[in-house]
Amino acid sequence: MPDFKLKQLLSKIREEKPLVHNITNYVVMNFTANTLLAMGASPVMAHAPEEVEEMAGLARSLVINIGTLSSTWIDSMVLAGLKANSLGVPVIFDPVGSGATSLRTRTSRMMVDSMKISVVRGNASEVLSLASEGTITKGVDSAHSVEDAAQAAREIAGQINSVVAITGAVDLITDGERVIRCRNGHPLMGCVTGTGCAATATIAAFSAVTKDCMEAAAAGLAFFGLAGEIAAERARAPGSFAAALVDALYEISPEEFQSRALLD
Amino acid sequence: MPDFKLKQLLSKIREEKPLVHNITNYVVMNFTANTLLAMGASPVMAHAPEEVEEMAGLARSLVINIGTLSSTWIDSMVLAGLKANSLGVPVIFDPVGSGATSLRTRTSRMMVDSMKISVVRGNASEVLSLASEGTITKGVDSAHSVEDAAQAAREIAGQINSVVAITGAVDLITDGERVIRCRNGHPLMGCVTGTGCAATATIAAFSAVTKDCMEAAAAGLAFFGLAGEIAAERARAPGSFAAALVDALYEISPEEFQSRALLD
Amino acid sequence: MPDFKLKQLLSKIREEKPLVHNITNYVVMNFTANTLLAMGASPVMAHAPEEVEEMAGLARSLVINIGTLSSTWIDSMVLAGLKANSLGVPVIFDPVGSGATSLRTRTSRMMVDSMKISVVRGNASEVLSLASEGTITKGVDSAHSVEDAAQAAREIAGQINSVVAITGAVDLITDGERVIRCRNGHPLMGCVTGTGCAATATIAAFSAVTKDCMEAAAAGLAFFGLAGEIAAERARAPGSFAAALVDALYEISPEEFQSRALLD
Repeated sequence: MPDFKLKQLLSKIREEKPLVHNITNYVVMNFTANTLLAMGASPVMAHAPEEVEEMAGLARSLVINIGTLSSTWIDSMVLAGLKANSLGVPVIFDPVGSGATSLRTRTSRMMVDSMKISVVRGNASEVLSLASEGTITKGVDSAHSVEDAAQAAREIAGQINSVVAITGAVDLITDGERVIRCRNGHPLMGCVTGTGCAATATIAAFSAVTKDCMEAAAAGLAFFGLAGEIAAERARAPGSFAAALVDALYEISPEEFQSRALLD
Repeated sequence: MPDFKLKQLLSKIREEKPLVHNITNYVVMNFTANTLLAMGASPVMAHAPEEVEEMAGLARSLVINIGTLSSTWIDSMVLAGLKANSLGVPVIFDPVGSGATSLRTRTSRMMVDSMKISVVRGNASEVLSLASEGTITKGVDSAHSVEDAAQAAREIAGQINSVVAITGAVDLITDGERVIRCRNGHPLMGCVTGTGCAATATIAAFSAVTKDCMEAAAAGLAFFGLAGEIAAERARAPGSFAAALVDALYEISPEEFQSRALLD
Repeated sequence: MPDFKLKQLLSKIREEKPLVHNITNYVVMNFTANTLLAMGASPVMAHAPEEVEEMAGLARSLVINIGTLSSTWIDSMVLAGLKANSLGVPVIFDPVGSGATSLRTRTSRMMVDSMKISVVRGNASEVLSLASEGTITKGVDSAHSVEDAAQAAREIAGQINSVVAITGAVDLITDGERVIRCRNGHPLMGCVTGTGCAATATIAAFSAVTKDCMEAAAAGLAFFGLAGEIAAERARAPGSFAAALVDALYEISPEEFQSRALLD
């Protein structure tokens, strides 16, 4: 396991309750806010062009998620992202459905071109769409295996100068040079909407307490995946699993997190 | 019971995981996505005029739901519906609150006039508002009994050339000639927001795997109603009931569905 | 305890199922609707300028909540509020994040200036921002204690001619003269997004069945807080707690409400 201070990072989130500004999609706003609250962070959702810069300036990290895109929201995302860049607030980007429609692919590429993004998290198709034409995702599901995407992810990370996190059965995190795999998680997570988006928000919470983007991405995915594992010990179907997942985000202690994270 | 192949249809959804495109209301987006995921389909929500046609073209069915309407969304609904029509993708329409405000009534009538709709699902007031002036719904609740509405439903189905499904204590499904009743369901479903909208999405999932719109509507309502019955065996109040309902959507086997569907 | 007829009010909600019109934020729409349904009221969400006046006219109370603000929604809030005023429909206002960004502070002040509001509910910072410049909230959390805010709340209530409810560890309700404290509630409520907004909606449900705004505000906060206490007896973490809270809203009898409300 890389030498990450997972225990200290989670303790820091719970002590400092960092404000995480989310410009995210309608489907997952509630679940994302509950994820952040349960783990100890402070969520805020704001999308109006009149206030996104001010809100991003109050926050310790910013999530941009294009899951239910429209043109006015794109403008706000850019405004907030550039303001965050100017203040050193990390921007975590979730290119939901990039590759599936040209609006999403075009917008995602514009985002990575127009601002400095600390971490991109998506499934393999979404991330691969940032580099090359022609990958078609089936909704937000992945059309590629994580392992197939490993080399491409390194190249993309280099191209866009960002940590790239591809989630799947095994998660892959790379800054273009180092590659870390996260083996936490459970298949039931794929049966609950917004788990990918919530994982992105979890990375944002960790990015508020460490400047190492690889560490933030790895910690976020390991923490969220561990919560999924614990939830699956308690629930066997998606409705009760979703509640148990939120419970676990609240209950995992810093020590348990450190000892059960599966990063290599 | 009509000679529907319920077992095979549910198996097909679970194998093929059809993409269902939803242009729906803010209140129920999360619950709708979780309903579709739990039962085995692949939900996507997209509403931007720039992408709805492309997304509808990727999908195997389209839900249009006017629960939180605004003018730009109406434009997108029409664009997506016409594209779906041109590709033979079935359109399932939920006229939430039609009859309650003139915007909703006017929009609903425009929808049924401007595109080919495969199935309309609503409560009695909503469906009746598609035919004649002056029925006032109380929010999204029904002001008429299902039985009172049976003859009117047949007439409306004929007028708009669509299968009409009116949900209530007993659900009524008609194509203008045949009439099927579905007796699955539980009163607690009325205490959880979005159960009607989720039933509509369930119909959309079934319409992705059969061309018989009566079969899709009956299967969707029987399946969702059965999930409600099973949930009520496990939970006695709406918070835990909602989670149990999603659990049941995931757990009902094709055989159990076939044997417990109450269609006549 | 003040001489409020809590038992009768809750019975009246359950019998009459008053329609509560909500113009609220995306994050909490689902939870708010489920809160209102579980307690016995009828929620509707509608925000289009073309229909908000008509919908407000059908409703027995109106919630205005600025949690995810944008300019077109502000216009609709004013239209709906003025229509409600003209019809005597009580307006309950939740100034989410007022004080945190200038858009929210400016909008909140405009709301209280441009229409008659029956009850404002917020945390201390949000409510204090209605009076004076310069209080900065951290997201939607409170930067002031409820007790510190008591005198200021009385002044603000007088200035804006509205009942003011400040929620926190102990809730404070004042019309500028009388001051009532509500001691129901549980700390886990702060770990679930939208509990403040749902408390506001609960006040709206009570304001549909009593003209005494102090009574409606006190009843709403006591009822919602009691549900939180009961949920905490059943669940120890936020995911299962949220479901248990909704269950409790459904299960609390009028007699239990009367006997367990902690108002002084």
